[in-house]
Amino acid sequence: MSDTISPLAPKKQPKMPAIEGVRIATAAAGIKYKGRTDLLAMAFDEGTAVAGVFTRSKCPSAPVDLCRRNLAGGGARVLIVNSGNANAFTGKRGRESTELTARAAAKAAGCREEEVFLASTGVIGEPLDTTRFAHLLDGMVAEARPDGWAEAGKAIMTTDTYPKYATATVDLGGVPVTINGIAKGAGMVAPDMATMLSFIATDAPIEAAALQDMLGKGVGKTFNAITIDSDTSTSDTLILFATGKAEKRGAPRIADARDARLAPFRRALNRILRNLARQVVRDGEGATKEVEVTVTGARSARSARRIALSIANSPLVKTAVAGEDANWGRVVMAVGKAGEPAERDRLAIWFGDIRVAHEGERDPAYSEDAASAYMKRDEIAIRVDLGLGRGKATVWTCDLTKEYVAINGDYRS
Amino acid sequence: MSDTISPLAPKKQPKMPAIEGVRIATAAAGIKYKGRTDLLAMAFDEGTAVAGVFTRSKCPSAPVDLCRRNLAGGGARVLIVNSGNANAFTGKRGRESTELTARAAAKAAGCREEEVFLASTGVIGEPLDTTRFAHLLDGMVAEARPDGWAEAGKAIMTTDTYPKYATATVDLGGVPVTINGIAKGAGMVAPDMATMLSFIATDAPIEAAALQDMLGKGVGKTFNAITIDSDTSTSDTLILFATGKAEKRGAPRIADARDARLAPFRRALNRILRNLARQVVRDGEGATKEVEVTVTGARSARSARRIALSIANSPLVKTAVAGEDANWGRVVMAVGKAGEPAERDRLAIWFGDIRVAHEGERDPAYSEDAASAYMKRDEIAIRVDLGLGRGKATVWTCDLTKEYVAINGDYRS
Repeated sequence: MSDTISPLAPKKQPKMPAIEGVRIATAAAGIKYKGRTDLLAMAFDEGTAVAGVFTRSKCPSAPVDLCRRNLAGGGARVLIVNSGNANAFTGKRGRESTELTARAAAKAAGCREEEVFLASTGVIGEPLDTTRFAHLLDGMVAEARPDGWAEAGKAIMTTDTYPKYATATVDLGGVPVTINGIAKGAGMVAPDMATMLSFIATDAPIEAAALQDMLGKGVGKTFNAITIDSDTSTSDTLILFATGKAEKRGAPRIADARDARLAPFRRALNRILRNLARQVVRDGEGATKEVEVTVTGARSARSARRIALSIANSPLVKTAVAGEDANWGRVVMAVGKAGEPAERDRLAIWFGDIRVAHEGERDPAYSEDAASAYMKRDEIAIRVDLGLGRGKATVWTCDLTKEYVAINGDYRS
Repeated sequence: MSDTISPLAPKKQPKMPAIEGVRIATAAAGIKYKGRTDLLAMAFDEGTAVAGVFTRSKCPSAPVDLCRRNLAGGGARVLIVNSGNANAFTGKRGRESTELTARAAAKAAGCREEEVFLASTGVIGEPLDTTRFAHLLDGMVAEARPDGWAEAGKAIMTTDTYPKYATATVDLGGVPVTINGIAKGAGMVAPDMATMLSFIATDAPIEAAALQDMLGKGVGKTFNAITIDSDTSTSDTLILFATGKAEKRGAPRIADARDARLAPFRRALNRILRNLARQVVRDGEGATKEVEVTVTGARSARSARRIALSIANSPLVKTAVAGEDANWGRVVMAVGKAGEPAERDRLAIWFGDIRVAHEGERDPAYSEDAASAYMKRDEIAIRVDLGLGRGKATVWTCDLTKEYVAINGDYRS
């Protein structure tokens, strides 16, 4: 948590309703931070289905290994999250620590260890001392209450400057169901994963396989379409829990992701994923502007995505945005280096609605004043049309400022 | 050119000898900069062979297009370089501008247009106004002198804080021959190319095909093994000229790159390429430290190189180095995100001679004090052993500082 709140923070936070079958508790375990909560327990009623997407890092954290293993069972009863220590690259001691925590959590929730999910976020390589918090779990689960979502969002923050929430109520077979989500993340954020920590819960009666299908497809244009610094975390975790409690109010039980009644739910879930992902970008370390990069006219969607990421990850593009400089030459550079099909003399580039380049050169109508005025905004849209095909992709990033360097040159101390 | 010289600048510059068959002139054409030279003409005697390696950007500059075309002829008589404007993404006008310059240069040097080589560096997307300098070329070529190397290095600078020179004298079949090189580059520097602008000349009688073979192979572990900011320029150009003048002193004419007599020359050329490449990194925008990243024990050399670049391009690793923080957890992260074979529990990491991590966790003998003391040096060596195979690679980069952001948030204004 930082003293200075991102200028891109939401003007107001949504009121998070309770989700039937979910109870929440937080605690200040003093794992690393002082004077704030750093431990979250989320207890789920029996019958809760679970789906998850995790980092593709070859060096995943010990909790990611555990979650992947437990996902096979399809059921969840308790989630324990700590901030301040990632329990990543902690070797045998890391595995021992997750086993110990899982055992304590299973005892607290009265469930099997296979129904426990864990996530840790913070510094890498420091052993996680479970004696700091394992003894707290019994009491936390016992006292957990349905209305703890606001507190849950705060307990999982590290360098975040604001907690990230999203909620929606949507129709499932004629019955309203609710979806709540929280997320954390501000640095070491890049695609090729389900990014950061994010936890979503719903009372909809959707079975694990259908949940996993929706979540796996949903991340592509949401969490996997954001990048803060091109650095992929060892701990990225996105878990979706479905308590099924809406069934007794008449909501249909859904087993197949292709079920037509699922369409409104899927759209709402994707909106929540996108909302949370963009909140992560807008809290990017040192960020002063959000940048939406859209590439159209590529040979394929995959090619468009690679070019969009090449632009979004370019330090020169990102510093130009920070400097409010409409330096579209650097966008050309980033297109050129992506290694994807592109033809210089077909390129067109827009900043917002201002076309700055056309057919491989500066737009004849280009006005530096208009472009510079546009760059003063909080939200910058960069669009590139390659003129080659129908491939299209959008990704989100933030600018690169001195504050990013300051935060990360001094993170551990 | 910057007012503040990089703390990593060479303590002293080499004295650059003349190369027989090469004459040099510089001029202040006022293309963008005031009060400094920004135009270089290098004239070569008849019979000069040429080789070149260029950016792999899909949006190359107009001069790169011209050089690629003229390389087919194998001969060079004149090189014209301007700084302040890259003549990149300038469309039809860019091509007209290179044609005009080539015509004026060919007239000045009394040669065919196919023997002209051009390079431009500076801002992208601004049309290059040849009327600023085309009329100067006649006089420059006429007045060019063999001892202009020091001036040549200065005229091609943009955000560089010092000119980059290297020279060597080496045996070719019993006769000493000389190799001189200059380079420029401080930002938009990343591999996947022959980086930046660099021009090398020798009096050795080596034919174009052999030159090209040596140069193509030489860039892999030199210019293509450096990265400042992962951003590949549209204008990267490395050209090697061989006047052949040493032949009359008895040096053998070499047509085949496999000729055994070429070995000392090849080694000297590679040393010059590495020397210039490292000078570019040490002048990286805002750099305060040079970082050598070595990966060993990878499945292949290609895999080692990708992992080394993932580390060297990671903003979190680079900001940690800037902050003198021995944050090896970020090195783990960068290994994990590279997408290459790696096994967390086999990883070992060294900072200099200090082993900080071993078998997937912090080294039992790790001393934060010793690691922190090491990080205060100007030159930081990071080594990662993957324990999987025999693949090995070394790349060079610099740290990421607030000054990089300042330079690039305010470059055009």
